[in-house]
Amino acid sequence: MTGVTVAYFDGLGKAEVIRVLLTYLNVEFKDVRFEEIPDEIRAKCSFGQVPYYEDSEVGSLVETNAIVRYIAAKYNIAGKDLVEKAKIDSIYESTDDVHVLHYQANKKGDEAEKERVRTVAIPKFFAAWEKLLSQSSTKFFFGDSITLADIAVFRVIGHVALFGYKVSTTPYPKLDALVNHIGSLPQIAKYISARKASTF
Amino acid sequence: MTGVTVAYFDGLGKAEVIRVLLTYLNVEFKDVRFEEIPDEIRAKCSFGQVPYYEDSEVGSLVETNAIVRYIAAKYNIAGKDLVEKAKIDSIYESTDDVHVLHYQANKKGDEAEKERVRTVAIPKFFAAWEKLLSQSSTKFFFGDSITLADIAVFRVIGHVALFGYKVSTTPYPKLDALVNHIGSLPQIAKYISARKASTF
Repeated sequence: MTGVTVAYFDGLGKAEVIRVLLTYLNVEFKDVRFEEIPDEIRAKCSFGQVPYYEDSEVGSLVETNAIVRYIAAKYNIAGKDLVEKAKIDSIYESTDDVHVLHYQANKKGDEAEKERVRTVAIPKFFAAWEKLLSQSSTKFFFGDSITLADIAVFRVIGHVALFGYKVSTTPYPKLDALVNHIGSLPQIAKYISARKASTF
Repeated sequence: MTGVTVAYFDGLGKAEVIRVLLTYLNVEFKDVRFEEIPDEIRAKCSFGQVPYYEDSEVGSLVETNAIVRYIAAKYNIAGKDLVEKAKIDSIYESTDDVHVLHYQANKKGDEAEKERVRTVAIPKFFAAWEKLLSQSSTKFFFGDSITLADIAVFRVIGHVALFGYKVSTTPYPKLDALVNHIGSLPQIAKYISARKASTF
């Protein structure tokens, strides 16, 4: 047991990036889900928000992106030095941009805006990731193994596809290969296929 | 010369946290501002967005939060180990939450929502920061010197105050002391007093 807990509402939402990352890393975790934040969890959330993360080293940790970076750093996929860490963080943040784009457009519910996000805004990020991948000599963003950048891009593409923004990666060959590679890793494939439908 | 450039629109917006951080660190930087993103800058922005940051070590870097963390790590105020880094990152992210709260409320323009942000949502973060500061034996969030957490909290409180969300820190004594301490550092006081008015 690793003593790892991820607590969030019973859906994908902000927690899924954490769950996918831990799954990729083969870190067992207690996947706590609820309809309303239980008092005993809320008491440990500094800012009253979930996801909530816990392990024996860090204790309690909140804020999605801080949790993700902590896990990535702990398991050595956050970058090998200061510069690579910054570049990976930059790509991670771009996946958060895409997450926010799809979330805001769905919240607003304006069809023209949703169409713009689907056909213009998201494809721009796909093209940018393809360009960055093309600058790498491997199939990954950095070096010869998977980093947080790869996992995060894989995660967000799959995520927005579930909520109205299915954008094909076929026109972006390196991105397409990366997404297929990560999606076919046994632990990821198993997790995704067993994942129950969620409304958020 | 450090060869540091920060490029953004001619206002505070997303770049100000970077400028304030560099100012605190006494890092000289070229403060490039424009009405529209110039082509030569856009060409270096992977995701078509600014702020854009550059130094001789990292080269080009985009994504506000990645830039901030890179600078903080480079100048050793991001945390002394993995756990402290995560806790500081979590507080940093909470300041981004507050930034987004004020930005979204102003964008929406709904007066009741703005009032809720001013009187309920932002004070909740102030109370949370006060609680975290109370758990520290010093006047800072972590250890006996300023980290990114302190600077980021100072920055966002001053920022939202300029755009309709002036919330008093007086009911939060440790937070109040921290904000006053950072605000009275010579380089910060000079920067803030010379800062020209901005509409965003």
